[in-house]
Amino acid sequence: MNNGRVTIPTDKNFVDGTKKYVRLWGADAVRDCDGTQLPENARSLAGKVYKTYFLARGNNEWAYAHDECLQNAALMSDRVLAVSERLSVDPLAHYSTEQLALNEESVSLWQVYDRTAGQEIGSWRYDEKSKRVEVENAVPMHEYTVNFFAKILWDATQIYNYKTNGWTIAKDRDIDPVYPEAFALMERDLKAWLEENKDVTVVRFTTFFYHFFNIYDDKDRVKYFDWFGYPMSASPAMFRLFKEKYGYDIALEDIVDEGYYNNHFRVPRKAFLDYMELLESFVAKCVRHFTDIVHAYKKEAMMFIGDNWIGAEIYGKHFAEMGLDAVVGSINSGATLRMVSDVAGVNYREVRLLPYFFPDTLREDGQCTKELQDSWVTERRALLRRPVERIGFGGYLRLADKFPAFTRAVAALCDEFRSVLAKIAGQKPYSHVKAAILNAWGKKRTWMTHMVLQDACYQHTTFYLGLLESLSGMAADVEFVSFDDALRGGLAGYDVVINAGDADTAFCGGNAWLDPALCEAVRAYVHAGGGFIGIGEPTAAPAGGSFFRLADVLGVDEERSLSMSRYKYNRDVCRSHFITEESGGGFDCNGGVQNVYALDGALVLGKKTEQRLGVDIGAFHVKLAANVFGKGRAVYMAGYKHGARNARLLLRALLWAAGKEDTLRRAFSDNEGTECNYYPESGLYALVNNTDSRADTTFYDIEGNSRKVSLRPYELKWVQT
Amino acid sequence: MNNGRVTIPTDKNFVDGTKKYVRLWGADAVRDCDGTQLPENARSLAGKVYKTYFLARGNNEWAYAHDECLQNAALMSDRVLAVSERLSVDPLAHYSTEQLALNEESVSLWQVYDRTAGQEIGSWRYDEKSKRVEVENAVPMHEYTVNFFAKILWDATQIYNYKTNGWTIAKDRDIDPVYPEAFALMERDLKAWLEENKDVTVVRFTTFFYHFFNIYDDKDRVKYFDWFGYPMSASPAMFRLFKEKYGYDIALEDIVDEGYYNNHFRVPRKAFLDYMELLESFVAKCVRHFTDIVHAYKKEAMMFIGDNWIGAEIYGKHFAEMGLDAVVGSINSGATLRMVSDVAGVNYREVRLLPYFFPDTLREDGQCTKELQDSWVTERRALLRRPVERIGFGGYLRLADKFPAFTRAVAALCDEFRSVLAKIAGQKPYSHVKAAILNAWGKKRTWMTHMVLQDACYQHTTFYLGLLESLSGMAADVEFVSFDDALRGGLAGYDVVINAGDADTAFCGGNAWLDPALCEAVRAYVHAGGGFIGIGEPTAAPAGGSFFRLADVLGVDEERSLSMSRYKYNRDVCRSHFITEESGGGFDCNGGVQNVYALDGALVLGKKTEQRLGVDIGAFHVKLAANVFGKGRAVYMAGYKHGARNARLLLRALLWAAGKEDTLRRAFSDNEGTECNYYPESGLYALVNNTDSRADTTFYDIEGNSRKVSLRPYELKWVQT
Repeated sequence: MNNGRVTIPTDKNFVDGTKKYVRLWGADAVRDCDGTQLPENARSLAGKVYKTYFLARGNNEWAYAHDECLQNAALMSDRVLAVSERLSVDPLAHYSTEQLALNEESVSLWQVYDRTAGQEIGSWRYDEKSKRVEVENAVPMHEYTVNFFAKILWDATQIYNYKTNGWTIAKDRDIDPVYPEAFALMERDLKAWLEENKDVTVVRFTTFFYHFFNIYDDKDRVKYFDWFGYPMSASPAMFRLFKEKYGYDIALEDIVDEGYYNNHFRVPRKAFLDYMELLESFVAKCVRHFTDIVHAYKKEAMMFIGDNWIGAEIYGKHFAEMGLDAVVGSINSGATLRMVSDVAGVNYREVRLLPYFFPDTLREDGQCTKELQDSWVTERRALLRRPVERIGFGGYLRLADKFPAFTRAVAALCDEFRSVLAKIAGQKPYSHVKAAILNAWGKKRTWMTHMVLQDACYQHTTFYLGLLESLSGMAADVEFVSFDDALRGGLAGYDVVINAGDADTAFCGGNAWLDPALCEAVRAYVHAGGGFIGIGEPTAAPAGGSFFRLADVLGVDEERSLSMSRYKYNRDVCRSHFITEESGGGFDCNGGVQNVYALDGALVLGKKTEQRLGVDIGAFHVKLAANVFGKGRAVYMAGYKHGARNARLLLRALLWAAGKEDTLRRAFSDNEGTECNYYPESGLYALVNNTDSRADTTFYDIEGNSRKVSLRPYELKWVQT
Repeated sequence: MNNGRVTIPTDKNFVDGTKKYVRLWGADAVRDCDGTQLPENARSLAGKVYKTYFLARGNNEWAYAHDECLQNAALMSDRVLAVSERLSVDPLAHYSTEQLALNEESVSLWQVYDRTAGQEIGSWRYDEKSKRVEVENAVPMHEYTVNFFAKILWDATQIYNYKTNGWTIAKDRDIDPVYPEAFALMERDLKAWLEENKDVTVVRFTTFFYHFFNIYDDKDRVKYFDWFGYPMSASPAMFRLFKEKYGYDIALEDIVDEGYYNNHFRVPRKAFLDYMELLESFVAKCVRHFTDIVHAYKKEAMMFIGDNWIGAEIYGKHFAEMGLDAVVGSINSGATLRMVSDVAGVNYREVRLLPYFFPDTLREDGQCTKELQDSWVTERRALLRRPVERIGFGGYLRLADKFPAFTRAVAALCDEFRSVLAKIAGQKPYSHVKAAILNAWGKKRTWMTHMVLQDACYQHTTFYLGLLESLSGMAADVEFVSFDDALRGGLAGYDVVINAGDADTAFCGGNAWLDPALCEAVRAYVHAGGGFIGIGEPTAAPAGGSFFRLADVLGVDEERSLSMSRYKYNRDVCRSHFITEESGGGFDCNGGVQNVYALDGALVLGKKTEQRLGVDIGAFHVKLAANVFGKGRAVYMAGYKHGARNARLLLRALLWAAGKEDTLRRAFSDNEGTECNYYPESGLYALVNNTDSRADTTFYDIEGNSRKVSLRPYELKWVQT
């Protein structure tokens, strides 16, 4: 198959060029982009025509006339110090008043908190004239905050484009489907649009209703940015639905969360989980209404993963109810590819590849060609585990046209992509092990743990995003399991359970580990023969004399200045171990958590660091350790960094923890710069060279028979045995 | 005064040599040491004769015959995993059975804890035959521990000497004065000893009763070592006294503390504080009985600070009741000198200087002379602030005699020491500021915060021990204030309050900061014009939306993976500030706490580190920051390291926080390798060169008049203006 599965951008001023690349790249779909318009007869260019559609924004005439139907945000004011018993707070201080206005009709829902005492207080009133909250009976030297609703005056994504590109068009206002008039308008507008856009075959929803949490400050700078955040979905009307559904009141504090806004690093609490469920079911119901209309027009409905996607959780239990045909996401890694490709409940999944065809990304033919290829081999690892059905590009096609090596490389990439799909043909690849990533969120945050913006990296999260990246392309089945799942027997059937995260986060688990039942469940699983891998501060929650609650399972604990009087003698490094066999005894854990020491019986792996924990009461920082617990095994890593060497070490750690060391050299490529995937149904092996230089390797088939293979730079070679 | 104030070791085989050094060093006291014996007519050598006396050990005949009067230790067993409903625990597993035996008469006080559930359980019995605790109805996959009393069979200090030196003498058993027969024996033995030792003028108690927590394991290795620990003072009899005094039962868990044993990094809880008070008053009462006897024999009673010193808290409120004439302590820093010299309630204080005259410390004349001088200038800083009345040496005098440069240097040191005492003559030196170190312990841990063994250094504590060291010799009044003091108005009168420590420790304060009243008290103090310096994780306790509870005062907070979505824009470094004026804008904080960011309004000082906190949501690690809060000021330091440059920076930070920048160049020596102390009553200035090379400096008198001064290596120069 030399064409299909590829979407390219087009423009009404580049029709002949579009035809050229439809042919050269085998594209079967064209799309509009920010700053381009579809040609008149787009259908003549390709079988599929995508067009972006906004449900919640676009009809500014109506939105500006219906203030009462605008979307809201649940926000917290600055922290203000009381210096006397009277205190005056401007809730919107340091917020962008271009983006936000106080929702003065909602004052009865506002809250004032004494953050020093940790209490809500009642002695306050809102002064409409000054637009300030006046607090009485304040305690001097306590800090106070106001929780309030603000109306959103400007679509958050548009603010970015507008400010960046110096736009002067009208500012889009987002309307809220929770109000029947707004919902009815959305329906009318969509139908009209569908009538107008006969040529369009795929309605690319960008996205549905509620924007991720993205608030600006009074200096036109981003104030909060949380790609997963829900505060911009909340409203007095949604709170009323909450009461109707659950029988209890939700408060602004349940969303505001001391100013942490329930970002997904926070251990989620019941009211917020109920709120998410409410929102997801509400969004699903609304979206279904619109996808039914799209289908009535014989078009497909595609969801863009991003922007106003809040509530449309792609791994939530209401996702399939939305009746979508497809999802499309912008990706920049193996983990983000898997985030799209593992989505269930749609007919096909598409990813937008890098680089975008923009002037700042396509500068020089060699540079952009290299960038394309490097991104591709990164993402190809994940693709070979679980492919998306389609790929695409964005930006200005006329710009790409200036770079001949680049456009040739795109053509080769598209061919390789199609060949992968053809070869795999829906087969499940062979896995050495089946692994569960255990945290507070489980399935809902599949391939999304530790992300702030897709896989944008925060220093704290590099270990864990690196872990996801390595796993995304590894010959291992990876699933995401919640603590609740674990408590209901959900660990059965996994070879290895992974708990990775910083203390006090939802991904480590924080106080979830104070539940003895969770400790029991995981200990019982390992004790009976399961594998466990902890990264960072796994199972951390100080209680009962240890910091890691499963220190006994892991064979390590973290010194938190409270047990320095306990001597630590387990300091000898085991220099010969299955896990470190190919790394020369080393492990680059990217710094890693400090002050971790080994308990008696554990094996300290990796080279010794020079930094000692003390003069007499000494122990060095453990970076990597292995421990036997009952019939099971555990591995601890103080940190992690994605790379060929560590990915191999991680695979070995998974195998060791699972007690499956003997399967390493089955469906395996020896050179660490290469990898092998095996498709049992067809008997095909995909050997990939992930490096930009020639790689000689020893290939082992599933029976363990080996032979030498040589791979060109970046090569994907199919081997049939 | 060319003699006096100096104690030297003697030996019955080195009498003429002793006479030589009495003359050369101007010694007025001789002492015995481990491995030496006093000569017959020791009194003919010097006016004062010290002899070591053990109250609790030495009469092994009696101790071996009175098992019921031995001391006990409150201990916790290993953590043992239940794999079924029955569990058998050997309480003494992994403990030294040479040191410990189960106290089987105390079984009714033992406790079994489910450490996974955090609950004491009742379904267990002790099996005398197997000497094991048998637990029933255990929950599989929970960890259990047994709290128990063990009898101490061997004095902990002797174990060390015995094992180190291959001794074969009888193993000393410590008896407990809580038993009237043991107390009576101590009295009889002391009286007999006093009768026998007519020549002795100073009874050097080493020490009284209860050893600091020092337990060995089953491989002859130290298992726990806590110079401040109380578990070896506990006993069933002491628990009965507790009930009588307080009307409620103390449990083993109140001492065992989840296996943390209430080491002084733990935030202390009520029952343990009550226990300390009980023990201190008990020890004081007993000691007073014996000091009265010593005085009846016209001798002096001196306490060695160490070994069996538990309960004899030198800054406790019962200390003065003991009727001691003197204390003596082994020191190795300015901070440990101050720990001795600040003690009140005795007639004189003495310190043992380094190096000891031992074969492993006196190896080569140049080396030991340098070690002597370096130690001395370190300690001299503190001496000039608050002198001890006496100094002394320990070890084998005959060994020192082999090193002529060394013995000459000792002579010079003794002369310099005597001159310091003569010049200071009880005057209080001038201080730029009055500072309070605020923590859970306050006065009781004066100059002892963050120590595990005197000032033995654990990696976590280097910041804080460095702080103490710098302060010990700085022209600042330093006092130690507890949170309770602060709540009772105790911050009044201080120019600067310092909170320094790791989160969750008594020295930071941990949950003490959840008390709004404490936040109020400190905020009010700063807001009204006070200074505040936070080092490490000051005021840390996650609540109300911040990690540092006084983030508003400090101008910084620590990112704990929960507020990554908040953008942090305060990243510009202020390159010109009073605090960093002499450090070239730099600050070596020895690594320091990571992930601290500046709030809006704070000034980030110190050079920017390259390591960023994130790609977009970025902030670098703040190492040093300054903030204005109301009329007051705060300084944050992520870490600290003692040294000339940092001590100067710290002094500047104290002055800036106190709003007293203009007093810097008063009674001041400009060269950072030098320091100045001023004694207002006499108008004398002590200029010291803390370095081993010549130092040119500008000296400023109290009026600010300056002149050039040149100091020889290590020189102490007295200047009269």
